[in-house]
Amino acid sequence: MTQPGALMAAEIAEQPEVLAALLARQTDPLADVAAAVRTRAPRFVLFAARGTSDHAALYAKYLVETKLALPAGLVSPSTMTVYGARPALDDVLFVAVSQSGGSPDLVESMSTARACGALTLAVTNQPSSPLARAAELSADVAAGPELAVAATKTYTAELLALYLVVAGWAGLDTSAAARLPDAAARTLARADRVDAAADRYRFADRLVTTARGYSYPTAREAALKLMETSYLGAQAFSGADLLHGPMAMVDAGVPVIAIRTPGAGGQAMDPVIAKLTNVGADVLLVGPDSGLPVATEGVDAELSPILEILPLQQLAWRLALNRGGDPDAPRGLRKVTETY
Amino acid sequence: MTQPGALMAAEIAEQPEVLAALLARQTDPLADVAAAVRTRAPRFVLFAARGTSDHAALYAKYLVETKLALPAGLVSPSTMTVYGARPALDDVLFVAVSQSGGSPDLVESMSTARACGALTLAVTNQPSSPLARAAELSADVAAGPELAVAATKTYTAELLALYLVVAGWAGLDTSAAARLPDAAARTLARADRVDAAADRYRFADRLVTTARGYSYPTAREAALKLMETSYLGAQAFSGADLLHGPMAMVDAGVPVIAIRTPGAGGQAMDPVIAKLTNVGADVLLVGPDSGLPVATEGVDAELSPILEILPLQQLAWRLALNRGGDPDAPRGLRKVTETY
Repeated sequence: MTQPGALMAAEIAEQPEVLAALLARQTDPLADVAAAVRTRAPRFVLFAARGTSDHAALYAKYLVETKLALPAGLVSPSTMTVYGARPALDDVLFVAVSQSGGSPDLVESMSTARACGALTLAVTNQPSSPLARAAELSADVAAGPELAVAATKTYTAELLALYLVVAGWAGLDTSAAARLPDAAARTLARADRVDAAADRYRFADRLVTTARGYSYPTAREAALKLMETSYLGAQAFSGADLLHGPMAMVDAGVPVIAIRTPGAGGQAMDPVIAKLTNVGADVLLVGPDSGLPVATEGVDAELSPILEILPLQQLAWRLALNRGGDPDAPRGLRKVTETY
Repeated sequence: MTQPGALMAAEIAEQPEVLAALLARQTDPLADVAAAVRTRAPRFVLFAARGTSDHAALYAKYLVETKLALPAGLVSPSTMTVYGARPALDDVLFVAVSQSGGSPDLVESMSTARACGALTLAVTNQPSSPLARAAELSADVAAGPELAVAATKTYTAELLALYLVVAGWAGLDTSAAARLPDAAARTLARADRVDAAADRYRFADRLVTTARGYSYPTAREAALKLMETSYLGAQAFSGADLLHGPMAMVDAGVPVIAIRTPGAGGQAMDPVIAKLTNVGADVLLVGPDSGLPVATEGVDAELSPILEILPLQQLAWRLALNRGGDPDAPRGLRKVTETY
């Protein structure tokens, strides 16, 4: 009989080591994957994923658009699995991201994409999974077994593995990634701030998260963690989309968590944060020297998402416990979700 | 001084006429656009849009994937406007969808896409807008002036215009679209059911909408309408994604609206609806002979989204009025949202 939340707490705490191990052991195999992709010179990149991994895919989509200057999209797996579409995928790199590599609709999409001419890449924590076996290329995020239902360490490991593949393909210097394990440890050490935020949100029924650019996936993933562990009605919006409609439902009664780390995406949040403040919203900033501090010094903007999510994982965990829940056993969920 | 919600009510009611007028007057010009696109034979399609128009773009993305069997993606405008990406867009059709055609970030994305080699198409309700002028091809959804802040008739007109362009490009028979105006009128006539649902949700603070496939954009758009007029915390999930995490926050206290119209996407919702029922959720179905009835007889599955949204627009309007709000003047919003 373990303590409620013990699994999730251990996996959150393990992330500096997971990132360090990934850098030490997977940098070369991921560089090989990047080289294999580069040789085939895809002109378009499609990502398929669900849940937490969908947020890692969204991050990688931003990287592909900005670092490779290639068009990219997130596929709707249902077009292949429900409607039976057989798209023309020559010159397309099809990347499926999945912790377990076991969801049947992703495996089917992968097989279909391969049969339709795509170069296929599976990014998973299970290199012998059906998804990895269905793909031509496979990248192992090597996070070790993840036992908590709410994914944490596999998310940051997926982000880093996808970064190394895209950056390697683009021929970028990835040496700054070496600062991540230490920066992650320093970020995780500020649990005092997390506890204060959890206290403040003790009786909140809903919450909005917002960010732009590379950090938008952080907002999405934070909302999912809060939903699945604390049962909050958490909603994520890109800062730009928030101004198109949803702003109407933000008032002093709906807390807002805004990710504002250094870089162009963070700067683009400033007018959004000003508008939120203007309507009397309760805004908690996630960033260096902010309400939820993130140790971004010396870390490039495109790597910040690997750090930004850490205090938000801690917040979801702490809030679930404070509310009498067990973040290791959210109601109605299992570790591997089978969708068709 | 008009009555609260008078503008939105009039524009909701006008939709059968708007659809009829679009079919009568725009079928030929849209067929010309389709023919022009087909001549250039794009291999990938990218969509750029925000807010309500983003949901129309998502619908068109499903159509492109299923009817044209081409890979497609929704672009993150920030990669071009915030991060300055200059993607390689030969063989790409870049479609921007916007009611006003005035949002600066879309205009900038369109100009960048055109400079980067894309074939560009603007789908707007303002054929002389900056967006339409920035594009090589332009499609007018011809819905007439839309005065309410919450977009209704321009949404269904965008859906139909995008359908006609994609179906025309794919060489499909579009004659079934002629049934839409009458089906829309019959769907709108069931305000009694809408009033009953609004009564039931009078004190709800949040709500979940869900669907799959072609109808997923309906779930997204319904959530946005409810947020911007009734200030509900409304969250949309694809039926598949709902099972990956967010299911944990659904209980008997969170109402769920599930779109379940005939077709493969609707059928794929059946296990999701069963699971929701199983956890004691309060589920309202949108479909033929359902809680919120939709007159889908004789209308193909890919055209159903044009009808499904109608009772949900009525619901957002009625709920806003019941709560003492004015759906024509949501707090904090203007008709044209300028994002950069």
